[in-house]
Amino acid sequence: MLILSNEDVTKLLTMEDCLQALSAAYQAFGEGRALNIPRLDSLLEHQPDLGRVYSFKVMGGAVIGGVQALRINSDVIHWPEVDGNRRRVKIPAAKGHWVGLVYLFDPATGMPLAIFPDGVLQHFRVGAANGLAARYLAPTGVQEVALLGTGWQAETQLLAFDTVVKPREVRVFSPNPEHREAFCARMQGCVQAALRPVADAESAVRGAQVVAAATNSMQPVLRPEWIQPGVHFSTIKAQEVDRTMVQQTHLYLHTRKQAKADVQSAGNVPEFEKEAGWWRQLDLSQTPDLVDLVCGRVAGRQSADEVTLFVNNVGMGLQFAAVGALVWQRARQLGIGHELPDEWFIENVHP
Amino acid sequence: MLILSNEDVTKLLTMEDCLQALSAAYQAFGEGRALNIPRLDSLLEHQPDLGRVYSFKVMGGAVIGGVQALRINSDVIHWPEVDGNRRRVKIPAAKGHWVGLVYLFDPATGMPLAIFPDGVLQHFRVGAANGLAARYLAPTGVQEVALLGTGWQAETQLLAFDTVVKPREVRVFSPNPEHREAFCARMQGCVQAALRPVADAESAVRGAQVVAAATNSMQPVLRPEWIQPGVHFSTIKAQEVDRTMVQQTHLYLHTRKQAKADVQSAGNVPEFEKEAGWWRQLDLSQTPDLVDLVCGRVAGRQSADEVTLFVNNVGMGLQFAAVGALVWQRARQLGIGHELPDEWFIENVHP
Repeated sequence: MLILSNEDVTKLLTMEDCLQALSAAYQAFGEGRALNIPRLDSLLEHQPDLGRVYSFKVMGGAVIGGVQALRINSDVIHWPEVDGNRRRVKIPAAKGHWVGLVYLFDPATGMPLAIFPDGVLQHFRVGAANGLAARYLAPTGVQEVALLGTGWQAETQLLAFDTVVKPREVRVFSPNPEHREAFCARMQGCVQAALRPVADAESAVRGAQVVAAATNSMQPVLRPEWIQPGVHFSTIKAQEVDRTMVQQTHLYLHTRKQAKADVQSAGNVPEFEKEAGWWRQLDLSQTPDLVDLVCGRVAGRQSADEVTLFVNNVGMGLQFAAVGALVWQRARQLGIGHELPDEWFIENVHP
Repeated sequence: MLILSNEDVTKLLTMEDCLQALSAAYQAFGEGRALNIPRLDSLLEHQPDLGRVYSFKVMGGAVIGGVQALRINSDVIHWPEVDGNRRRVKIPAAKGHWVGLVYLFDPATGMPLAIFPDGVLQHFRVGAANGLAARYLAPTGVQEVALLGTGWQAETQLLAFDTVVKPREVRVFSPNPEHREAFCARMQGCVQAALRPVADAESAVRGAQVVAAATNSMQPVLRPEWIQPGVHFSTIKAQEVDRTMVQQTHLYLHTRKQAKADVQSAGNVPEFEKEAGWWRQLDLSQTPDLVDLVCGRVAGRQSADEVTLFVNNVGMGLQFAAVGALVWQRARQLGIGHELPDEWFIENVHP
């Protein structure tokens, strides 16, 4: 039983690896040779006087011939307003740290294989999903990408779009000037594209063939007035778009099987956290998703003028099985990680 | 982060504790102050030539003011025929051991608290649920109990009925003479009741006011011809009863919220494992459950002649939060278990 750190995972993964691993896993899923454990959020009353809630999130998946993964998030969350927008923020309440863990198991024996923090993998798998979608949906010959957001999600979105669409320039907007400057300085060495911080979203978007949102905003950040023939819009969650945007573009989901995250709650939990509003009301049963694209069940971009919108509506636990298998194999090969006695995690009492 | 063993858990728990902990948690659940993460079984093709499947099972729960628990089972399973009955058997494929683990988290901080094997807790929580039901459903003054089955589930069923209904005698049947003799010899020191092995199920059942099945049979073991006024029947899974039994008794479930386990599969997995047959067809939306009984929403046994049937249809992950909290608190107080660095299980990368 291997304990790995985020530093270990960083050493073991590239965006190219993640794109390949996700592509293979989605292919398997589309062919009925993989399983996804749908995301379930359990929200528990905790310090309602401070506007805080405990959020326990589970998702997982497995591929035949691969590994079984489960990812757990154990978060204290709140919703501060920043620049007039409500944001969903995870408070690092565990000794100043967050708690997100990936657990891997071996389907051949049942044996636990590894436990490691989810942070790095989480960023990579979100980026890789949006990047993979762009492979099928972005126009050819993309020169300019607009990136809205400069947090940790934006980093791997940038890596993914840099890898997949290979733009000449990425224009980066954050309402905070220091954030956008620092982001470009920090990330320039990691990508081929030239990074340019810009002072307003419009300057980022104007002329871009790909517009990617990567924020923690609970309000729409992609604007319908930005729609131009041939643009591909990309978003890491449904809250970043509004109904008009969905109506005026060709919508593709990450996963149709779980169009909306399942949420349950006990006690005093804000209503807006329990429901994703208008998004929950949509009938998405016929909307194509990334699995359809990867499996060739739908064709992807149909014309140079088509306006496409990829909504990473809900993460798939399967992603952790896909990329986790890679992490584990490489850690084993390289002898990385803390080894714990298997005996602690198996039992001779019938479960 | 505490690692505990089954031996540790055994030292820390009594059946009386479990009954109290479950009762409090069900009360909280009935009042909307607790959460249950429904059981989900994911069945993955694995060695179909050997009739083996990989089964990954997740369930969990949390109580406001208590702990968050998740229980994972990672099993290689098959279905051998024993005495003409198909049984569902977990193969100890992990170095000759099984893999079932309970993970506890602190809702106040998100911090992981403990990991321990589920075996002992699993037996206690199933026993305690059937025992708790008997508190509301068994007739008064029970003298004789019939116990069908002598495996590990039967042990804690015996402890629970001994604690709750306090019978003078428990007659124990297993088709295997050695099993029933050994069971009575092994368990006699743990209970007040006199244990008596008997050579056929009818001898066990005749005159008993409580008839408890605790087997791994996939076919019915409780027979409608055993129905007598005032008897309480108890079963640890729906497969142990048939439609007639359900029609001719007053049925009570463990949990109505999840009347049937959710099952998904990929690849070559036997059909009978995916569906619980006739049970899945029943409308159980109005059937009273153990939460109703504990909360006083339904009255329990109405008359001395009533024939009651408690079906422990699906386990509740909430049970692991209820009893797990107790295990953790006591382990902390007594300084039991291996301590691992918290730093391995928390992260400074945003998840």
